[in-house]
Amino acid sequence: VVFPHEPVVRVSGPILQVQLAETLLLNLLNFESLIATKASRIRLAARDRRIVDFGMRRAQGLGCLQASRAAIIGGVDATSNVLAACLDGLETSGTVAHSWVQSFDSELEAFRAQARSFGHATVLLVDTYDTLRSGVPHAIQVAQEMSERGERLLAIRLDSGDLAYLSRAARGMLDAAGLPHVKIAASNQLDETVIKSLLDQEAPIDIFGVGTKLVTSFDCPALDGVYKLCSARGTPRMKLSDVYRKMNLPGDKRVYRLSDEDGTLRGDVVVLEGEKPPSRMVDPFETERSAEIGGLSAEPLFREVMARGRVVGKLPGAVDSARIARESLSLLPREHQRFENPHVYRVGISPELFQLRRRLVEESRRREQGPSPGPT
Amino acid sequence: VVFPHEPVVRVSGPILQVQLAETLLLNLLNFESLIATKASRIRLAARDRRIVDFGMRRAQGLGCLQASRAAIIGGVDATSNVLAACLDGLETSGTVAHSWVQSFDSELEAFRAQARSFGHATVLLVDTYDTLRSGVPHAIQVAQEMSERGERLLAIRLDSGDLAYLSRAARGMLDAAGLPHVKIAASNQLDETVIKSLLDQEAPIDIFGVGTKLVTSFDCPALDGVYKLCSARGTPRMKLSDVYRKMNLPGDKRVYRLSDEDGTLRGDVVVLEGEKPPSRMVDPFETERSAEIGGLSAEPLFREVMARGRVVGKLPGAVDSARIARESLSLLPREHQRFENPHVYRVGISPELFQLRRRLVEESRRREQGPSPGPT
Repeated sequence: VVFPHEPVVRVSGPILQVQLAETLLLNLLNFESLIATKASRIRLAARDRRIVDFGMRRAQGLGCLQASRAAIIGGVDATSNVLAACLDGLETSGTVAHSWVQSFDSELEAFRAQARSFGHATVLLVDTYDTLRSGVPHAIQVAQEMSERGERLLAIRLDSGDLAYLSRAARGMLDAAGLPHVKIAASNQLDETVIKSLLDQEAPIDIFGVGTKLVTSFDCPALDGVYKLCSARGTPRMKLSDVYRKMNLPGDKRVYRLSDEDGTLRGDVVVLEGEKPPSRMVDPFETERSAEIGGLSAEPLFREVMARGRVVGKLPGAVDSARIARESLSLLPREHQRFENPHVYRVGISPELFQLRRRLVEESRRREQGPSPGPT
Repeated sequence: VVFPHEPVVRVSGPILQVQLAETLLLNLLNFESLIATKASRIRLAARDRRIVDFGMRRAQGLGCLQASRAAIIGGVDATSNVLAACLDGLETSGTVAHSWVQSFDSELEAFRAQARSFGHATVLLVDTYDTLRSGVPHAIQVAQEMSERGERLLAIRLDSGDLAYLSRAARGMLDAAGLPHVKIAASNQLDETVIKSLLDQEAPIDIFGVGTKLVTSFDCPALDGVYKLCSARGTPRMKLSDVYRKMNLPGDKRVYRLSDEDGTLRGDVVVLEGEKPPSRMVDPFETERSAEIGGLSAEPLFREVMARGRVVGKLPGAVDSARIARESLSLLPREHQRFENPHVYRVGISPELFQLRRRLVEESRRREQGPSPGPT
């Protein structure tokens, strides 16, 4: 399976079996990678604030299970998707819907009932009627009643209106009422851009509930990973194309991740099976560009996860994968992580792989010029 | 469950049960409606050409099952998603991947093997090496060999390059070789806009394979249907908002679909439970706008599908739903179906419902002006 520049999963076996695996592998890798990436962008924007996945109602049918799992892997803290949480050991978090507040004869009565049921985990939704004139005053009243019982209200949630303005106003009202411990949660069409803007405005929001934009990766709803045959019966294969970027890298390959002495990631290099990490790597598309990499340490990325139809060793769960992703991202220089014109992470190929591809393209083009078009 | 203007599903029961149903109903209705709508746009663009869903590899995990089903309901003819087809009785259709062609030592050998296995259902993928210099000539050779055996090649598939140019060139080559019966299928990032453009250019394409853009509804990847509490213990309820359009319509309601004497659809009207279809309907948001509807026939849209936890009667399967959708769309005037600035389909409410909402908003605003903010 190949992402724009780099083989990510290598599958080998009898042709019928590896063909049957194609669609399933693409489906899972494309979608979960997409959502984990979106989640990691949201994590970056949200800094150290808590993020909760609220996306199930806008997710794609049963795909909500993969979406919530991938969101946690990418850096979201908890999910409101209870089944996904049960299946993958994720932390659950949620709040009430407006319909729950409306089902009571008054907002105050709804808040009191919720506080009685949830105690210290109570998050009151304050925008059913009027956020600053009704919701926040009633929440303060219930928070003070809780304080008298020795309990603490966890948070209020804003779900409409100008979140920067309302969060600042609500924070002021809560603090003035002696409730600095009550957190503010916000939701409503949030994504990394809105969250970044809110925090740039110093909106006092402690928890972000992110739904639609996360689980659909709204601004980029598909990742176009593909599955290419690179080798058959020991011979490297290629799909030709007028566009160089659409040709696969032929042959059995491995990927090494390059880092400097303090562990900072410097790029990846794709080499042919059996090759050692080279001292120089070449840009896969711009033949004039190359880089010395001899001084960098090279960590092999491929490891066997299935053999003869069985999983090899213990695979990390979603929470372990989230930790691994967080640690890897911490080694990626900041200039690759910014949203505007990020610096491109360098992926090169070995000179040997470069030569193999060139030879195969030339052989194929020579055949095309003969009397029988195409490979025969 | 409420789409922008109109209640689509009405759920009543004990509060705990109807709350538990919220997320599941939203998830299924939002996603399947979205994909069925996208599919019906693609159907409209593709006119009478065949459309096949190729989306599974880019679908959202297990959501591919709902995506393929909804695609068929919206007007796609067949799917390459075999499991969805088995579960919902859909027609399957597919072709081979480039990797399959590459797994043979030559393209010709791959085509011959495919023709031997698939016979009259063979669709040859002709762009693995070079479409016009290799793929189409080899397909013609195999088609002629099939003709000699008394078989017919079904189609060739173009999956890259300029589909208008290549389809015209390939059509010319096939016709010149005495193979006018061989159809041309096209795929590669197709959506309704690209298909419309191809057919406007009179590209001789008979079959469209549509994937990513269909199953993700790429240009609009979420439908924002919501679930609102409209009535509790016999009393109409509302969620207030600064924005009139975000307020729900209070009370138990029904929807009637209006049509004129020749069956053409003229709009929908939402009325309170127990009301007869009124002679005049009012725009839900622009109070000055209303329309006489007394002369139109009104078909009740609501029917009970579940009662006491059990399905009532027989629900239509995906294929029946596709027929119902097709018949309904055929009654919708063309001006609502165009892609550029479509005429808005009119949805109104009864004057009685309008008055009820106005009264509830006024009562609530009066309460807010009192000493205790919000409803108490």
